[in-house]
Amino acid sequence: MEFMTGVKPEEALEIRDLLAEDMAGKTVKVNGTVHAVNDMGAVAFVILRKREGLLQCVYQEKDTDFDLKLLKEGAALKLEGTLEKDERAPHGIEIRIQHVEILSQPSEAMPLPISKWKMNTSLDAKLNYRSISLRNIRERAKFKIQEGIVRGFRDFLYSQEFTEIHTPKVGAKSAEGGANLFRLEYFHHPAVLQQSPQLYKQMMVGVFERVFETGPVFRAEKHNTKRHLNEYTSLDFEMGYIHGFEDIMAMETGFLQYMLELLKREYADALKILNVTLPDASKIPAVRFDEAKRLVSEKYDRKIRNPFDLEPEEEALIGRYFQEEYNADFVFVTHYPSKKRPFYAMDDPEDNRYTLSFDLLYHGLEITTGGQRIHDYQMLRDKIAAKGMTEEGLEQYLSTFKHGMPPHGGLGIGLERLTMKLIGEDNIRETTLFPRDLSRLEP
Amino acid sequence: MEFMTGVKPEEALEIRDLLAEDMAGKTVKVNGTVHAVNDMGAVAFVILRKREGLLQCVYQEKDTDFDLKLLKEGAALKLEGTLEKDERAPHGIEIRIQHVEILSQPSEAMPLPISKWKMNTSLDAKLNYRSISLRNIRERAKFKIQEGIVRGFRDFLYSQEFTEIHTPKVGAKSAEGGANLFRLEYFHHPAVLQQSPQLYKQMMVGVFERVFETGPVFRAEKHNTKRHLNEYTSLDFEMGYIHGFEDIMAMETGFLQYMLELLKREYADALKILNVTLPDASKIPAVRFDEAKRLVSEKYDRKIRNPFDLEPEEEALIGRYFQEEYNADFVFVTHYPSKKRPFYAMDDPEDNRYTLSFDLLYHGLEITTGGQRIHDYQMLRDKIAAKGMTEEGLEQYLSTFKHGMPPHGGLGIGLERLTMKLIGEDNIRETTLFPRDLSRLEP
Repeated sequence: MEFMTGVKPEEALEIRDLLAEDMAGKTVKVNGTVHAVNDMGAVAFVILRKREGLLQCVYQEKDTDFDLKLLKEGAALKLEGTLEKDERAPHGIEIRIQHVEILSQPSEAMPLPISKWKMNTSLDAKLNYRSISLRNIRERAKFKIQEGIVRGFRDFLYSQEFTEIHTPKVGAKSAEGGANLFRLEYFHHPAVLQQSPQLYKQMMVGVFERVFETGPVFRAEKHNTKRHLNEYTSLDFEMGYIHGFEDIMAMETGFLQYMLELLKREYADALKILNVTLPDASKIPAVRFDEAKRLVSEKYDRKIRNPFDLEPEEEALIGRYFQEEYNADFVFVTHYPSKKRPFYAMDDPEDNRYTLSFDLLYHGLEITTGGQRIHDYQMLRDKIAAKGMTEEGLEQYLSTFKHGMPPHGGLGIGLERLTMKLIGEDNIRETTLFPRDLSRLEP
Repeated sequence: MEFMTGVKPEEALEIRDLLAEDMAGKTVKVNGTVHAVNDMGAVAFVILRKREGLLQCVYQEKDTDFDLKLLKEGAALKLEGTLEKDERAPHGIEIRIQHVEILSQPSEAMPLPISKWKMNTSLDAKLNYRSISLRNIRERAKFKIQEGIVRGFRDFLYSQEFTEIHTPKVGAKSAEGGANLFRLEYFHHPAVLQQSPQLYKQMMVGVFERVFETGPVFRAEKHNTKRHLNEYTSLDFEMGYIHGFEDIMAMETGFLQYMLELLKREYADALKILNVTLPDASKIPAVRFDEAKRLVSEKYDRKIRNPFDLEPEEEALIGRYFQEEYNADFVFVTHYPSKKRPFYAMDDPEDNRYTLSFDLLYHGLEITTGGQRIHDYQMLRDKIAAKGMTEEGLEQYLSTFKHGMPPHGGLGIGLERLTMKLIGEDNIRETTLFPRDLSRLEP
């Protein structure tokens, strides 16, 4: 009988192994994909793409037993050679090739110039050949940073005693209802895709007190902008026993600080590849919605058209104002109008035209919506009635409150938007592996 | 201007704070939900439910300024009192109540006996009152263990240099096609919910070499069994430059070992609450499909009805065989018949009626399907044709291979099933927060 006992040491080395002190002059085996071949005549540089980065290999006919022509861009190789230090090479090392084993060959030449530092390819072409365009070093680095953001979110919340949950994406009813729902048939019953895990995470506050989820949400919005997707990854948390919605903003600030440190520590390569300057989250200003409108109206000489709405241009100006006046990358805008918030938002007892809620703007773009929720059963029913909604389909949600719930609140962060702002892209499709928008359902 | 600077120290203490050495005799503030009140006449025990566990508080009329009747089951409280050590109490501490602030009161009595150690409530009742039933200590502990499994999966794979990805759940086509797809309309285009991230994760092997995803998958199967859900959480990984599918089994074994250690270290409370004996993953036997069938047929005197299929009863017997003969909790069954595997599975070059693939059985139930995939473009096209399929809708997937892919493979693990087996439940709905099955779309 054969037994599996765990991961075994691998003969082929990774870049981190090659960088060990005493490797110079040693014969090593490595594998990787041919990223580029620069044939200089007497010598050729074969650049291998590996999961950690690029590795320079040197081909000289006299040292080897195969033809350079076999090394096509996209070929998967295993090769053996001598490691030499060379300051000019990536990571300061190169491999002088002796033997090559070709694991697989491409059938056609690459449709995009993925080995270039910047591809200068249209977004459409990049999305049409998604599994190819992402092989570019800069393209893939974006998603390493995206990984760091999600990982930071989870690790920070674990440290704050949140419990991770998995809530269903198909349901009979969704959090906010309305027109922007994708509908489907579920074994002869009408069903929808969830716009948000909102109702579920609130229900779970009564169980775990603090919960989070990182998962897909679906919005059938007919927007076609640079900042909207119809499916995106939402980073959600919800926490009980809060003193006010400020506790939610404090927790988000803590997450941002933790995540930025994690990126610095563990994702330095990707940050360097993309030349990212990380924002400062040590101190984030918080300003009331009405006050923010007044400030930008005065400073930028702009009329307030609707005191209960914030236009994208106004968001951008608020971002600009706080960058200019406070050198701030982020700003919390608080006390959004009740009309603009869903039924579960807690109204401000001092002025019920506003809510105890906030958005977080990052360089003038909303990346988070959050706030305190109603926890009193009767208040919740009254609010549902006042919004002209029915309780139908909300019975389970409401029963949670009927049987007692602590004061609580939470937020949702759009992962792709946060990634976009962090690396300075201006189209959310650049930071989405396989975007779903009005016209794109493939690949 | 007000500024947010991160998480502030909280006045109300958590159980871990209360357990510090020098706390006895001190006045402390805590918050929590009334889990149970045991009125003994002269004294009453008020059990608070907190996120880390239960906390015993003692009410004596002479010490306090409020009426015990106010402390209803489900009320959210903040209270102040003196901490005393008491070996009989949970965690060995109790709080002598002085003042109480009621943060919220329930409107109705609890519909289920959630404060009992075992509720003895039907599964249906538990699912109908999901946000209530999970407040039971044993019910919620199941999901702490589930968290540990996912967390272990991710942390182990990060350590093995996998990149986390987020692939779309709505698409034009899914991995395996067929009848078990949920269909929807996506802005006037036909669309489906993904049965698996299979095609996407393979496409991303060409980019990141090693990738994983933890997310929902959707199967419109008309099964109504104890082990099937129509939406579940899939733990998926895919890795390049493998020597064979044994590398995938080795990686999974490594994950199981890591995850079991994490559970022991960080989830000891939940394991104890559920009285879980963790399985042994130090050494997992691997047996061929045909050999496994022969072994159980001989030992249990059972006819082999179909040599190319494995019935659930046979799976259970294979589990039993390896438990009896090798004291093994897990067993890898390898070389599944080609007919039973999807088009992307790599056939065994030595006998193409079988594939280079495996299932992992845990006490006789399949919890993982994995294997090596075809990486050669022409071989893949030939296999698609041989299966009688069309390439329509697979263009993007196929172009990945056209431009070069390393040998690779991967697996998918059903999170709820693994949780179910780990804690010894026999219905997958017990380890799903909000199950989706043929008859259940709510809550």
